[in-house]
Amino acid sequence: MVRLVLDCFGGDHSPDANVNGALLALQETPDLEVVLTGDEKTLTEALSGKPYDKNRLKIVHAPDVIGCDEIPTAAIKKKPESSLMKAVELVRTDENLHGLVTVGSTGALVAAATLRIGRIHGVKRPAFCPLLPTMTGGIVGVCDSGANVDVNVKLLTQFALMGSLYLESAYGIEKPRVALLNIGAEAEKGDALRKEAYPVLQNLEGIHFVGNMESRDLLGGKYDLVVCDGFSGNVLIKSTEGACLEMLKKLKKDIYSRPIYKLGALLMKRMFDEEKRFMDYRSYGGSVLLGCKKLIVKGHGSSNADAVKACLMQAYRMQDANLTEKIKAAIGAAADDQ
Amino acid sequence: MVRLVLDCFGGDHSPDANVNGALLALQETPDLEVVLTGDEKTLTEALSGKPYDKNRLKIVHAPDVIGCDEIPTAAIKKKPESSLMKAVELVRTDENLHGLVTVGSTGALVAAATLRIGRIHGVKRPAFCPLLPTMTGGIVGVCDSGANVDVNVKLLTQFALMGSLYLESAYGIEKPRVALLNIGAEAEKGDALRKEAYPVLQNLEGIHFVGNMESRDLLGGKYDLVVCDGFSGNVLIKSTEGACLEMLKKLKKDIYSRPIYKLGALLMKRMFDEEKRFMDYRSYGGSVLLGCKKLIVKGHGSSNADAVKACLMQAYRMQDANLTEKIKAAIGAAADDQ
Repeated sequence: MVRLVLDCFGGDHSPDANVNGALLALQETPDLEVVLTGDEKTLTEALSGKPYDKNRLKIVHAPDVIGCDEIPTAAIKKKPESSLMKAVELVRTDENLHGLVTVGSTGALVAAATLRIGRIHGVKRPAFCPLLPTMTGGIVGVCDSGANVDVNVKLLTQFALMGSLYLESAYGIEKPRVALLNIGAEAEKGDALRKEAYPVLQNLEGIHFVGNMESRDLLGGKYDLVVCDGFSGNVLIKSTEGACLEMLKKLKKDIYSRPIYKLGALLMKRMFDEEKRFMDYRSYGGSVLLGCKKLIVKGHGSSNADAVKACLMQAYRMQDANLTEKIKAAIGAAADDQ
Repeated sequence: MVRLVLDCFGGDHSPDANVNGALLALQETPDLEVVLTGDEKTLTEALSGKPYDKNRLKIVHAPDVIGCDEIPTAAIKKKPESSLMKAVELVRTDENLHGLVTVGSTGALVAAATLRIGRIHGVKRPAFCPLLPTMTGGIVGVCDSGANVDVNVKLLTQFALMGSLYLESAYGIEKPRVALLNIGAEAEKGDALRKEAYPVLQNLEGIHFVGNMESRDLLGGKYDLVVCDGFSGNVLIKSTEGACLEMLKKLKKDIYSRPIYKLGALLMKRMFDEEKRFMDYRSYGGSVLLGCKKLIVKGHGSSNADAVKACLMQAYRMQDANLTEKIKAAIGAAADDQ
């Protein structure tokens, strides 16, 4: 049985998207239990009239909410009764709970995860690893994408190890091809950090390093995992998402500019719907925060029910693959050797 | 009269694209003179049979070529007879020559520009400022996009000043809206460099600073200039270009997957051609290297004749607007004050 806690507030469509996402996940997965945190009355109302297995869905009351505009470290101290902090305390104290899913404040999540849940022995810093769809029908992970803006070579090696284990165990990708995000393909390219990191990654046991990646190749399907500092990783995924969304918007606008285009688009409706789904980050689950003692998935703030369900399934998959133990074995053991 | 030197080798379609690009620019601009550098025989052949004003087009023989895979600092020393180094020496020594255009090795260009042509008094480091089209029909500059991977706050302020002057004088954008590339909109976001840079940019005279920009907003039309270190700037523009190109590729592939889509696309042919042109970086000229004593434009290695022409016109426009003098006045004066 996999047991997850779902923070039901803090998203644009909370709590309905969260509650309905949980119901979808429970329907599909018989060996899943979910604990919802948030205002009990609101959550009970959101559930009323919907059929679900009461043995596998519980509510834990949390009257408060942390907003995205609050200062993370202050908010997590000031609001122990928030839906996020209740969820964090539940997974922290209950060893039967395997992980936590939220669509709320990223900053508060990182702070709470680091300060309350804690890192796996040997892990220097937890790191985000979101997934993007590639044009060849696969996925590519980017680690780190924003949890750590100032990094060093040691951190990059841990991102490479954790990300590889994640893709291998949760997505069945054998020997994930790991690349270092850089501004040129050659080994000697980049700033001081990249130049120092390249040979270290090349000699790192436990990963399959294939060299530098230029950002224009992210979606080309040649890499499974891109390793980077959280600043450039964040720029990488947000500019990729941004460019795709802006292009879709432009296509839509241009289609409406002439009747003949509208007619053409009508014939291609199914294709355009498919492109839209393809580009929708929500289909690919959330961004996993790797390296904590419990599994953590952060969904987009704009998540709908399907997206929340995808996040829960992602955590389920990681637990099913025993990811935390694998990271513990790979990184904890190395830390003990030193 | 504006006088420019065009390095005719080092690009994927050199020298034909370069030679034809020069002819196009000369046709359109009566007060332009161009000096071509490269193998004289090859260039004469490329010109033969084509009508042009011989008073405004000269060839300077340079038998050698610097390849993109050569180590820049070594190549510029080892190959004084290359088309690039001949061009550099010409603009360096002849005060009647205003600038240089190349589609060859970026690294060799930056090294030669810094070491041979030299910086404007007060400018700490030259910086690239390519332009991208926005979805609202405008343009946005990104400075720096790869010449400086390790930067500090002083450099960022100079990128902001030079980029603003460039957009203002060469593109007529009044009070360009300058943003700092960051991983969040709030002033306190980002790594140590960004946190330190924000208030300095906010108080910097001579620019119109509007705050942090998240990379997903690059194409939205809300900013005229994005200021960043060369590493993340490079990631920003290459992932944006990459995502747009990959999406176009995917659309094309999907269109061919069903006859009904092909029919639809046929009705939308003009629109798709337009989108393709819109996304083609070559329409927007090259990347300007700001801060050197002479004007420098670096075109894409894959430039065709139209793209080379656009680069020449860009340099023409900058000379016409007296950009070098303006940067000298703004940054040189500030340097003298210190």
